[in-house]
Amino acid sequence: MSSSYGENIELTIFGQSHSSGIGMTLQGVPAGKEIDMEELAKFLARRAPGRNEYSTPRKEPDEPEFLSGIFNGKTCGTPITAIIRNKDRRSEDYSALKDLPRPGHADYTANIKYFGAQDYRGGGHFSGRLTAALCVAGGICKQLLAKEGIEVHARISSIGPIRDRGEFVESLEDKVFPVCDDEMGEKMREYIAERRAEGDSVGGTVECVILGAPAGLGDPIFDGMENRIANAVFGIPAVKGIEFGIGFAAADLCGSENNDGMYMEDGEIRTVTNHAGGILGGITNGMPVTFKVAFKPTPSITKAQRSVNLTTKEDEGLMIAGRHDPCIVPRAVPCVEAAAAIAVYDAFLARKREL
Amino acid sequence: MSSSYGENIELTIFGQSHSSGIGMTLQGVPAGKEIDMEELAKFLARRAPGRNEYSTPRKEPDEPEFLSGIFNGKTCGTPITAIIRNKDRRSEDYSALKDLPRPGHADYTANIKYFGAQDYRGGGHFSGRLTAALCVAGGICKQLLAKEGIEVHARISSIGPIRDRGEFVESLEDKVFPVCDDEMGEKMREYIAERRAEGDSVGGTVECVILGAPAGLGDPIFDGMENRIANAVFGIPAVKGIEFGIGFAAADLCGSENNDGMYMEDGEIRTVTNHAGGILGGITNGMPVTFKVAFKPTPSITKAQRSVNLTTKEDEGLMIAGRHDPCIVPRAVPCVEAAAAIAVYDAFLARKREL
Amino acid sequence: MSSSYGENIELTIFGQSHSSGIGMTLQGVPAGKEIDMEELAKFLARRAPGRNEYSTPRKEPDEPEFLSGIFNGKTCGTPITAIIRNKDRRSEDYSALKDLPRPGHADYTANIKYFGAQDYRGGGHFSGRLTAALCVAGGICKQLLAKEGIEVHARISSIGPIRDRGEFVESLEDKVFPVCDDEMGEKMREYIAERRAEGDSVGGTVECVILGAPAGLGDPIFDGMENRIANAVFGIPAVKGIEFGIGFAAADLCGSENNDGMYMEDGEIRTVTNHAGGILGGITNGMPVTFKVAFKPTPSITKAQRSVNLTTKEDEGLMIAGRHDPCIVPRAVPCVEAAAAIAVYDAFLARKREL
Amino acid sequence: MSSSYGENIELTIFGQSHSSGIGMTLQGVPAGKEIDMEELAKFLARRAPGRNEYSTPRKEPDEPEFLSGIFNGKTCGTPITAIIRNKDRRSEDYSALKDLPRPGHADYTANIKYFGAQDYRGGGHFSGRLTAALCVAGGICKQLLAKEGIEVHARISSIGPIRDRGEFVESLEDKVFPVCDDEMGEKMREYIAERRAEGDSVGGTVECVILGAPAGLGDPIFDGMENRIANAVFGIPAVKGIEFGIGFAAADLCGSENNDGMYMEDGEIRTVTNHAGGILGGITNGMPVTFKVAFKPTPSITKAQRSVNLTTKEDEGLMIAGRHDPCIVPRAVPCVEAAAAIAVYDAFLARKREL
Repeated sequence: MSSSYGENIELTIFGQSHSSGIGMTLQGVPAGKEIDMEELAKFLARRAPGRNEYSTPRKEPDEPEFLSGIFNGKTCGTPITAIIRNKDRRSEDYSALKDLPRPGHADYTANIKYFGAQDYRGGGHFSGRLTAALCVAGGICKQLLAKEGIEVHARISSIGPIRDRGEFVESLEDKVFPVCDDEMGEKMREYIAERRAEGDSVGGTVECVILGAPAGLGDPIFDGMENRIANAVFGIPAVKGIEFGIGFAAADLCGSENNDGMYMEDGEIRTVTNHAGGILGGITNGMPVTFKVAFKPTPSITKAQRSVNLTTKEDEGLMIAGRHDPCIVPRAVPCVEAAAAIAVYDAFLARKREL
Repeated sequence: MSSSYGENIELTIFGQSHSSGIGMTLQGVPAGKEIDMEELAKFLARRAPGRNEYSTPRKEPDEPEFLSGIFNGKTCGTPITAIIRNKDRRSEDYSALKDLPRPGHADYTANIKYFGAQDYRGGGHFSGRLTAALCVAGGICKQLLAKEGIEVHARISSIGPIRDRGEFVESLEDKVFPVCDDEMGEKMREYIAERRAEGDSVGGTVECVILGAPAGLGDPIFDGMENRIANAVFGIPAVKGIEFGIGFAAADLCGSENNDGMYMEDGEIRTVTNHAGGILGGITNGMPVTFKVAFKPTPSITKAQRSVNLTTKEDEGLMIAGRHDPCIVPRAVPCVEAAAAIAVYDAFLARKREL
Repeated sequence: MSSSYGENIELTIFGQSHSSGIGMTLQGVPAGKEIDMEELAKFLARRAPGRNEYSTPRKEPDEPEFLSGIFNGKTCGTPITAIIRNKDRRSEDYSALKDLPRPGHADYTANIKYFGAQDYRGGGHFSGRLTAALCVAGGICKQLLAKEGIEVHARISSIGPIRDRGEFVESLEDKVFPVCDDEMGEKMREYIAERRAEGDSVGGTVECVILGAPAGLGDPIFDGMENRIANAVFGIPAVKGIEFGIGFAAADLCGSENNDGMYMEDGEIRTVTNHAGGILGGITNGMPVTFKVAFKPTPSITKAQRSVNLTTKEDEGLMIAGRHDPCIVPRAVPCVEAAAAIAVYDAFLARKREL
Repeated sequence: MSSSYGENIELTIFGQSHSSGIGMTLQGVPAGKEIDMEELAKFLARRAPGRNEYSTPRKEPDEPEFLSGIFNGKTCGTPITAIIRNKDRRSEDYSALKDLPRPGHADYTANIKYFGAQDYRGGGHFSGRLTAALCVAGGICKQLLAKEGIEVHARISSIGPIRDRGEFVESLEDKVFPVCDDEMGEKMREYIAERRAEGDSVGGTVECVILGAPAGLGDPIFDGMENRIANAVFGIPAVKGIEFGIGFAAADLCGSENNDGMYMEDGEIRTVTNHAGGILGGITNGMPVTFKVAFKPTPSITKAQRSVNLTTKEDEGLMIAGRHDPCIVPRAVPCVEAAAAIAVYDAFLARKREL
C-alpha cells in the first residue's frame, strides 16, 4: 500500500502538512527491545527545521507522542504508533496556491489524482514534513540495527556543483553540516546563501554507508538490497536518482576495472575494491553497503515562474511567498539514514527466517 | 516476496539457469484481453542470445509454453503461467566454479545466503537467463498498455564511455542495435569488439521513455512511479543505478533552472522542459516518463582475477572459461522495457480502483 | 502484517487497552468521498460500552479524532487516521493479573509470544477495546458501500442456547437488542442477567447479511469472499467459528437438497434457495451474502478458576475482579458489520480493476 | 493476490482443469531442507482420484515435475515450482455446459466475473483438480514441519448425517477411509454408495489436529492462527464453514463451562480441557490446535436441476453427464492437512523473526 513500506516490519506514514497531525505506525518489531527516547530525539533534531540559515524558519517542536507499542521503555511487540501535532500552521499562505500549482511540486499531480479533493495546503501528504514520521521510524530502526552491530551513516556529498572531498567511513552526525571536508562544507554553505539571496534554491547529493551488515542480507530479483533501499529512499520527496557503489560510473568501465577481486583477511572474505557497494546479486557480501542519492533543488523559489490556473485553464505567472528551505539536502541527510535503516532492518528480519 | 512483483498484478519468476526449466506466473490481468503471440515472440527475440557478435553463442529457442491463463487467444482472468525449458545446458562448465566464486557475480553471496545449498550452475536463480521470464511478463504488459495508448520504448544510451546522440522520442525496436545515432552505434559495436578481443567486457546505460501515460498514475511516498519502476528495474541483474528525468544532473542545478514551467497547449497542461521525467510527487503529470539505468560491465571475463576458494578458505586465481556476453546492454534493452511495462501496468490497474 | 487488513484498502489497527490511545489508519479509499460524521458516531454508539445492563460499566466517549485523510468533509485520497484516547483507565485492576493469566484470555499466549514484555494491562492489544478502531474503519466502509447500493446488516441470532426466530432481511440497527423476534430477545436478556448474577458469562452467534452486492465480487482460491470475510471476522476477539449460507448444515445434506436451482426473474439470474449464502467459487452470485459467526462466552468471569502463576510456575486459583461484559454478543453485532464491510469494500475495489 | 497465500512463504497456484497443465510455486522455504520425494508421492496419492468406489474414475498419475527450487534433493532457497500435466482431458464433456451453469458450481459466477472469457472446461481454475497443486505445496510444508516436531493430521469426522466416534489424537493416514471408528466408516461408505446410486451426492466434515506446535505461533488481530488457517482452508473448493476447538458449540455455553482451566504438568503449562482448540488471542498455547471444516455435497449430480441459459437468458433444465465424485470428503482430508500445514509453516517462519 502506497504509504506503507516493508514485509517483515511494516511502516505506515499518515498525515498532511496542515492536518491536525502526522505520524507513523511501525509493526513487526520484536518485543522486548529497548528504545532510547533521548537518542531518538537527538536523531529527530538533525532533521528538524529552523535550526540554521538554510532551512525554513517554520519552527515545530516535532516531538512525537507515542500512543502505543512501547511499554516500560521497551517494545511490547504490537504496533508502535507515534503522532506529531502540526502546531505552527499558516494555511492561509497556501490558499492562493489552490488553483495555481507550483512547478516542480506535486500540486498539479495531486489535483489530477484526487479529482480536486486533495489537501492542497502546504503540499498535503506530499510535504517534506512527512519525513518527520519517516525519521521516527528510521530512528527506531537505527537503534535496533545498532544492537546488531550495524551502523547507518550519511553525509552531504555535494551541494549544487560543489563536491565534498575525502572518503566517507564514519559517522558525521555531530556536525551541523555533515561533510568530510569542512572547507568544502564552507563553500557549500556560501553557495546556498548566494542562491537564497537570489530567491533561488539548490540541489545536491547524499551518500550513505552501512557498516557491519553481515553477508547474506537481501534476496533475489525484486527483493535485492538495491530494490529494497531504492524503494524506501524514493519515499523521500525530491529524490530523482540512486546509485549503488560506483553506480553510473561503472557503466563506463570494463569488467576488469569494475570487478572487485576477492581475498582472505582475518578469516573473512573481503574485496580489494568495493565498486559493487557491498551488494552482489542483490545480497550483501560483508563489505560496506554504499549508495548515493540525487536530490533536485527545492522547487519552491521566489523567482517568477510559469504556471497554469486550474480553474480558468489559462497560463498564469506565479510568485511563491511563504517559508521554504533554499536547500533541503542538509535536512535530508538523516532522512536518507532513516530510509536506509528501515530497509536494512526489514532485510535483517527477513534473514532471521532462514537461519 | 522476493521473486514476485506487483500489487494489482503479481508477477512471480521461477527457475534456475540449469534447472529443467524457468518460467513466470502473472496474476491479476483482467479477463478477455487478446494476447498477440507473434508479437510476443518478436519481443522475446530482441532479448534472445546468440543473435550477433556481442552476445553469448548459447542458443536457446526460448519459446515459452503457456500452461494456463490464456484461453482461445485471450486472457481468461486466472493466473497466466509460461515455462521455458533449459535445453542447451553444459553444466559441467560450471562445476569447477562451485568453490571458486566469480568476482562481480552472486556466486559468493548465494553461497552464504543458502548455506552452500544454492544451485551454483550458471548463476542459478541469479542468472541473466531469468530475464527471459521477465520479458514474457513484460511483453504481455506492453501489449496490455498499448491497448490503453501507452507505449514503452528503450534504447542504448551509452556503451562504456561512448554516448548515443540525439533525442529519444520513438521506438527503435526494429534496429538490432537500438541507438538514435547509428554512427555512434557503430563506434559502440567496435568498442565492444575490441574489449571482447582482450577477454574483457563492457558496461553501459539504457534510457527508457514511456509515452501516452495519463496524468495521475502512481501513488504517494512508497508507491510513487519512481519507487515502482526502480523496484522492478533493479530486478534485472547488473543494474547499479537509476535516475528519473535528468536525475543526478538535477542535483547540480538551481531551482530556477530545474523547475519545469507549465503552460496550456491544445487543452492540456504541458511543461516547457521535462527535467522531472514526467513524475512529480511520485505521480505522472502527463509528460513522457523518462529514466536511465546503469549496467555494470558483465562480470564474466576471461582475464585472470582474484578469488577465494570457499573450501580451503585460501586466495586463488580464477580464469573463467565458458560462453559469456562481452556486453549485456543490447539484450538488456527489452528487459528494461519489460520491467517498466510491468511497473506501469501495475500502476495503471491501481488507478482504475480510484476512478 | 498482523494488525493490518486488505489489499486494495489497507486498514491498520494500533493501540492497547491501557496505552495513551488506540486508533486506525485506513489507506486506499478513493478521494472525494463524503463521510457523514454523525452517521459514523451513531454507528460507533452501537458498539460503545456502558449503554445497558449487560455491558461493562467502563464509560468511554470513544469519540475518534481524525488526524488526517479527511478534508472539507471528504476523503482526500491519502491515509485516514483516527485516534481514540484511553481516558478511563484503571490499570491497577490488572496489575494483580500480571503473573496470573486468565483462562480463555490471551494473557498467557501474549506472555509467551512477547517474552514477558507484553502490555498486560487489560489485554493490551488483544483487548476487545480495539474493536472501537475496527468500527471506525468499518463505519466508513459501510458508508462507502451504501453509496454503491450495498448494505451490511447483522443481528443477534442466538444467546447461549436461545435462538432468534424469523428470517433476517433488513436492518435492525435501531434496536438496542437487535433480534428479529423481540420475544426471543427478551428471553436472551433474561438469560444474560441470570448468568451474570451467578458471576458467569454467555456466548452467542451473530448473523450477517449483505444486500445489493453485485455478482462478480471475490476472487478464486485464497481471495474468495469466504476467505476475505473470514480473515476479517476472526480479527474480532472471541470469534471461534464462521459459516457461510447454511454452512455446517450443508455437510449433512445431499447435493439435490443443497444445490440452489437457478431461474430468471426481472431480467436477473436468481436462485430458488440461497444455501450457498450468495457465494459460489468464492465469487458473489448476486444473491444476499449471508454468514454466521460463533462467539465464545466472555472469558472474564468472577467464579473461581484454575490458573498457573507464571513466576512461581505453580498452580494457583484465580478470582477476577474488575468490570466485564457478561456477554459481548450485543456489542459484537456492529463489529461483525464492520469486519464484513471492510472485507466487501476491499473486494469491491478489487473488482474495479477488472472493469 | 488471489491465487497466492502467505507472508513468509508464498504459495502460488496456477492452471485450469483442462489447460495443458497446473502447478504451484512455493517461495520462501529456507535453503538446505531435504525433501523426501517418495513421502510426497505417498501424500499426493491420498488425494488422487480413481482409487476407489466413491471417487471419479478420471485417472491421472498426478505426478509433479519439479522445474526448479530443489537441487541435489534439497531446497536451494529459490522458488520451488512443480507442474502437473492434464493428460486425461475430455473437454467435449463440458462444451455443452458452456451456456448452462451448474447449480452449486462456480460456472455462473466465473462467467460474470470474467465477462464470458473464462475457461469453462471442467470448472477451469475453480476445479477441485487444483487441489493437487495445493497438496504438492502442503506435502512439502508437512515435511518441513515434521522436522520441527510439528505434525498435521486430519480425519473424516462426518459424512452426511453420520458422525465418526472417538477422539482423534493420532495419524490415520494409512487408512483408505480415515475415521477413528471403522464401524462408522463402513456406514459412511454405504451412505455414499446409496446416494451415488440415486445420482446424488453427499457432504461431510473433516477434523484436523496439529500436534507439537509450540506456544507462541500466530499474531494478533488479522494474523491469528484462526485467520491464517481459515484463509488457507477456504481455498479448498466446497468449504462452507470452519470452527476452532469446540467452535459453534462454545456459543451455547457459559464462560465457566467453556474456559479451559490451566495447570502445570511436567514443567509445562497445560489446560484441563481444550475447548479453545489450542488458540487464544490468535496465538497457540501449546495444546493441540484443532479445527473442523464443513464441506457441502458435491454439486455435480445426475439428477435433473434448474438452470438458466446464459445466451437465451431463459430457464432451462440441466442433466449433468461426465465423471464426478459423489463425495469429495475422503479426498479432501489430505487437502485440509495441506492447507493447515501451509498456514502453520508460514506462522512458524513468522515466529523465527521474533526469536
